[in-house]
Amino acid sequence: MRFSSRVDISAPNPIAAAEAAAKRAGVTLGKLNDSNPTRHGLAPALVPEVYTADPRGQRAAREALAEFLTRTYGGGAPVDPDRLYILSSTSEAYSWLIKLLCDAGDAVLAPKPGYPLIESIARLECVDTVEYQQRFDGSWYIDVAELEELLNGEHGARIRALVLINPNNPTGSYVKPSERERIVSLCREHGIAIIADEVFYDYSLEPFDGNARLAGEPGVLTFALDGFSKMLAAPHAKVGWIQVSGPDGDVAEAQHRLDVIADDYLPMSDIIARQIPALLDAAAAQTDRVRDRVRGNLALLHRLLDADEHGLVSVLRAEGGWNVLLRVPSVIDENELVLAMIDRHGLSGQPGYFFDMTSNGYLAISLLPEPDEFARNVRAVLDTVNGMLE
Amino acid sequence: MRFSSRVDISAPNPIAAAEAAAKRAGVTLGKLNDSNPTRHGLAPALVPEVYTADPRGQRAAREALAEFLTRTYGGGAPVDPDRLYILSSTSEAYSWLIKLLCDAGDAVLAPKPGYPLIESIARLECVDTVEYQQRFDGSWYIDVAELEELLNGEHGARIRALVLINPNNPTGSYVKPSERERIVSLCREHGIAIIADEVFYDYSLEPFDGNARLAGEPGVLTFALDGFSKMLAAPHAKVGWIQVSGPDGDVAEAQHRLDVIADDYLPMSDIIARQIPALLDAAAAQTDRVRDRVRGNLALLHRLLDADEHGLVSVLRAEGGWNVLLRVPSVIDENELVLAMIDRHGLSGQPGYFFDMTSNGYLAISLLPEPDEFARNVRAVLDTVNGMLE
Ligand SMILES: Cc1ncc(COP(=O)(O)O)c(C=O)c1O
Ligand SMILES: Cc1ncc(COP(=O)(O)O)c(C=O)c1O
Repeated sequence: MRFSSRVDISAPNPIAAAEAAAKRAGVTLGKLNDSNPTRHGLAPALVPEVYTADPRGQRAAREALAEFLTRTYGGGAPVDPDRLYILSSTSEAYSWLIKLLCDAGDAVLAPKPGYPLIESIARLECVDTVEYQQRFDGSWYIDVAELEELLNGEHGARIRALVLINPNNPTGSYVKPSERERIVSLCREHGIAIIADEVFYDYSLEPFDGNARLAGEPGVLTFALDGFSKMLAAPHAKVGWIQVSGPDGDVAEAQHRLDVIADDYLPMSDIIARQIPALLDAAAAQTDRVRDRVRGNLALLHRLLDADEHGLVSVLRAEGGWNVLLRVPSVIDENELVLAMIDRHGLSGQPGYFFDMTSNGYLAISLLPEPDEFARNVRAVLDTVNGMLE
Repeated sequence: MRFSSRVDISAPNPIAAAEAAAKRAGVTLGKLNDSNPTRHGLAPALVPEVYTADPRGQRAAREALAEFLTRTYGGGAPVDPDRLYILSSTSEAYSWLIKLLCDAGDAVLAPKPGYPLIESIARLECVDTVEYQQRFDGSWYIDVAELEELLNGEHGARIRALVLINPNNPTGSYVKPSERERIVSLCREHGIAIIADEVFYDYSLEPFDGNARLAGEPGVLTFALDGFSKMLAAPHAKVGWIQVSGPDGDVAEAQHRLDVIADDYLPMSDIIARQIPALLDAAAAQTDRVRDRVRGNLALLHRLLDADEHGLVSVLRAEGGWNVLLRVPSVIDENELVLAMIDRHGLSGQPGYFFDMTSNGYLAISLLPEPDEFARNVRAVLDTVNGMLE
């Protein structure tokens, strides 16, 4: 596994080495230059905690999270709190991992159609995005043969990571067990890491066999991302995490370097960290509530489309997530469709080209609104499409 | 002013343009693809707020902060909440600003001796650090002639920003009015921005004339950094901010781009933001309390050094901050000194070479500890130095 040269891991100076030796021996040294005011009785009353800078995030929060993940998803081995990094968002996680893995001019593979933020975040790190296709033949699948070609192709040597969104946004497709197996060996062969964004994992819209999180994947260096944005319907809490797994040697080397990055930013506030256990207690009920909402709206969507006499709008099969794609007649220009919807109904939207769909005629719709509002939104789409083709 | 090519500011598509026009006209559009669960009654009870993503940080928090800054520091014009960005730390602020200003291979100017994190953060952004000297002739000053040479020299074209630490850590020196004037015109001439880290600004250790924050500087594009780490003695709150100032055109262009960066990360949690007004209410008392502590310990330090019969250790004059530099006989190797102190007193420390001092024989000491502990620390230094030269 190759890592970037951004991270300074030069050998520790004699003082740092002596400090590390004392720590290993269980000796707590004083610090003549201690600039942490909370250790000297100076913390403000609203944040009375004594601050312990921990690159992976507050120990107690990581332990609560590991326990939660083990209880909720762990069929097998318990999640190790020392393989978790708690930070402010998956956006931040992407940024750290791209720094860890990519030098300027390197590239990451990202799915198309896909979450547009990845390209933007990579560009901010001076890193290119190479797209690989999710293809649709009644349901979505990953074109693994194309992935292989890309890795062996002219840009292959620059590619340092593969982003998998499980399930993908906005296609709603999970990584299938057979795809996963081939992708893991492909990445292992090419010495590249997987970044698995599983924020929508809990929101399956239809049952399917053999599904599993990539978090904990042992076959190749894997960074699984999740957070409270979707799990708790709390994008404003700003809690995300990375779970590291893979061959032990790669994991150790990756964490050694990721600790340096994390130590430069230390983003997690004690004001939030102290709430993490209580937030985790609310997670199961929140996920259930949101899952009921999106499943209920999907059923409502089918009823409303079935009842429409023109039959011009259909929904692409989605396995999971909060959004689905509507298929509208491709003779309608996507921009014109949304502009007309704004005009007639004061309702904007994101057509397929926002997500790099390969053909015209798609519109993403969120399954989150209260059913009344959701039905109004669907009717606005139908009215606009039907009106444009009259 | 030149900005980096990392930030995608390509022209908005027709839908984004129509959304912007509606906003300007005061019309609120619905969003078919709204993926914000808090707008649909789904937020968890612990974070019941409706989330409004704002790249500059929550409006109410920015207004409270602007009001606080105006009241506390504003002699002149009030601070505009729209020129503030609230984020998690000054480390994060450095990272955003380097992304805004520097492509890979560009460079920032940073003071030497100085805060070692800047070089590390810049390197994570694929950006080099070019050092400029703070020189000591009884008090510290910036070698502005050298700055000018660097800007006109072989790396000049790569330099995109000048970092000023006001007061600098660990030298404790403020930017003097005369230095400031020359530096501002130098930066304006060369089209480079100032990043002014003013986290220690409130902690003056001796009075001096004509001192002022760089925050609000109108003469050149200036990003002033501060936060609760030092102002409130709350490094664990994770609240920092950027205040943008300078010629209007440069400010507008910079904010347009900085908004894109900020919008990719949106780091500020509502759990913290809701506490910001109460934290600001505690700021004045906290700053006073810490200022009393550091000033008291500095006086104690002088008494303890004066009382020592060997007279081998002295303190460099410091104008502000939480640390001062002790001068120890330069015949003692700095590493050996600290290793001996660990051995004899279980006390580690950071010698001058940690901060790139140009000569041997310095040791940084924090003025934060409770006086008893502080006195023990000073005695440990004296005992170690005196013992090594016996
Ligand atoms: C694919 C994907 N990942 C992650 C997120 C959430 O990101 P964050 O944790 O930064 O809020 C989203 C939100 O829309 C998403 O669609
Ligand atoms: C020069 C300087 N800037 C900033 C900080 C504080 O950084 P943050 O806001 O990231 O806690 C420190 C802390 O030691 C510092 O010495």
